[in-house]
Amino acid sequence: MSAIRPVILSGGAGTRLWPLSVPARPKQLQPLTGARTMLQETALRVADPVLFAPLWVIAGQGHAAAIEAQLGEIGHRPARLILEPAGRNTAAAIALAALEAEPAELLLVLPSDHVVRDVAAFRTAVRAGAALAAAGHLVTFGIRPDRPETGYGYVKRGGALSDGSFAVERFVEKPDRETAAGYLADGGYDWNGGIFLFRADRCLEELEAHAPDILAAVRAALAGAEREGARVRPDPDAFAQVRSESIDYAVMERSGRVAVVPVAMGWSDVGSWDALHELAEKDSAGVARQGDVIAIDSKHCLVRSDGPTVVTIGVENLIVVATGDAVLILPRGQSQRAREAAEAIGKRESGEQAG
Amino acid sequence: MSAIRPVILSGGAGTRLWPLSVPARPKQLQPLTGARTMLQETALRVADPVLFAPLWVIAGQGHAAAIEAQLGEIGHRPARLILEPAGRNTAAAIALAALEAEPAELLLVLPSDHVVRDVAAFRTAVRAGAALAAAGHLVTFGIRPDRPETGYGYVKRGGALSDGSFAVERFVEKPDRETAAGYLADGGYDWNGGIFLFRADRCLEELEAHAPDILAAVRAALAGAEREGARVRPDPDAFAQVRSESIDYAVMERSGRVAVVPVAMGWSDVGSWDALHELAEKDSAGVARQGDVIAIDSKHCLVRSDGPTVVTIGVENLIVVATGDAVLILPRGQSQRAREAAEAIGKRESGEQAG
Repeated sequence: MSAIRPVILSGGAGTRLWPLSVPARPKQLQPLTGARTMLQETALRVADPVLFAPLWVIAGQGHAAAIEAQLGEIGHRPARLILEPAGRNTAAAIALAALEAEPAELLLVLPSDHVVRDVAAFRTAVRAGAALAAAGHLVTFGIRPDRPETGYGYVKRGGALSDGSFAVERFVEKPDRETAAGYLADGGYDWNGGIFLFRADRCLEELEAHAPDILAAVRAALAGAEREGARVRPDPDAFAQVRSESIDYAVMERSGRVAVVPVAMGWSDVGSWDALHELAEKDSAGVARQGDVIAIDSKHCLVRSDGPTVVTIGVENLIVVATGDAVLILPRGQSQRAREAAEAIGKRESGEQAG
Repeated sequence: MSAIRPVILSGGAGTRLWPLSVPARPKQLQPLTGARTMLQETALRVADPVLFAPLWVIAGQGHAAAIEAQLGEIGHRPARLILEPAGRNTAAAIALAALEAEPAELLLVLPSDHVVRDVAAFRTAVRAGAALAAAGHLVTFGIRPDRPETGYGYVKRGGALSDGSFAVERFVEKPDRETAAGYLADGGYDWNGGIFLFRADRCLEELEAHAPDILAAVRAALAGAEREGARVRPDPDAFAQVRSESIDYAVMERSGRVAVVPVAMGWSDVGSWDALHELAEKDSAGVARQGDVIAIDSKHCLVRSDGPTVVTIGVENLIVVATGDAVLILPRGQSQRAREAAEAIGKRESGEQAG
């Protein structure tokens, strides 16, 4: 089997981890669970040269220097760094990678901001997925649900393939709570973790079949690309024309040859401060401290500072996150509302510019 | 009646309003309830030249420049600025003022960090007190209790004097809750607000009678003082020998000629974040916002920032105070615990210096 090309998608600028994650320094460029940034952790996960070819990264233009610096700190550099002039979601990003690759190349597409605790399990699953991908399948990795999560898509397992893999009967979009509880009880549904493995040419065939406009627009943007060393900058005007769509919706939900490799690898997308509280090391009172924090008589809290000294006294079930610029305080269990803070700030700033 | 000399005591460096109040910039040098600092508000309260002589200030050496600058901003400057080389509590501070004054001068001693909403009532009470002081009484102003407060001393009214004033039957130290509730029910007890009015020579006589060691040590420190314009710097070595004692304990509780002038003047010592929450303007959800604050779906909170943008979402009954250096979060009703934060920081810093 030829080496697998890791393609790290670093285009997101999530607001669910505001105020830590902001457009200028998004979540994946931050250390969340340890000393290394999420991007660094992701790169190290696919650094084994026996299994993997040198990695590619697809990212926003503004993050090029930070990405090269962070990979440099761990002794790596991207073999190709494709810099999007604007975010156009995952279908466009993956089309960029598939068009740049050799036709028979196996591409392992992975988000830059997920936690995987069991890297050995991840690699075993990748090996199983690579065999399926070489045979022409579009492979997704299925995460066993442990709760009725409404924030992820699900894949329903169909007939068994080799090595504990399955054909995918169907993809389902983020369900409501009752539906999610049904999936959990059913046992035949896995979370779609957003990690994919396929041959470059198979990916292009499916894009051609299901989203030809996206493929054509990305191809045009690449034809006009500037290239400088490892950096590739698609033509901004052409790329601006690309339809913004997820690869799930554009291809995976529509394709007839999708396979799922279920894997238990201690996965989390760290999609909220609550998720980080679950992952983080906690003291006997359930308090996770990160940074310059003093928690007195406090219980079941996440208290994080990337700036000032933060002191909590006598509080319970709170999320407190401080940077040099901003502080967020909300109850544990409601941390998805961090978005509201980012939105309020955004609204205020655009109002200030208008006024 | 001759003009009354206001003597503002600015020596405190309270930790109850940590992290806003720290030794380098204590509470009285901060704006707490409006645009002006507590010191500025206090100075303006005693600026009427018909009633008051030019003011004196007694403060820590490190604050001289800040005090002159803040008074300058409101068009004032201290006629005398007595700079203590170290804090030695109120008996020493008042002894400094009494020794500097003319014997027959009336001294109105007032803390620099209290709120008085009704300045007209304050001045009326001062006029009544001045008559008593001129006749040889040591006058304190009695604040009508509206709750069984355990954080203040009380004065028990004795026989009636002129103009709604009373002889003081006794001073009592900070009572326990049950005792405080009894005082409240009794109706004959007022809070000792720490504002005093007396002739300089009467004050010195009482110090001589009840705390001669303090008076002698302060006199020695003043004999060696450096003087430069309005500034007076007592000799540091001599002042270091002064016993640290409150004027209440050293004199007022022991003297036979203390009078109390009860006054309803919208007084608060703003002794805690809870007190500030009570005083502050609040929205319909009971949230007091000060500085760069966004409170979403939050109730009955004090949220203050002197630095970062602070966002609260879905929280109730919290005190949140942020500066550029530190953030404090604790439940409303427990804000006296801010001290614990200041102590923890102090302990850590001394540990760092030792280690």
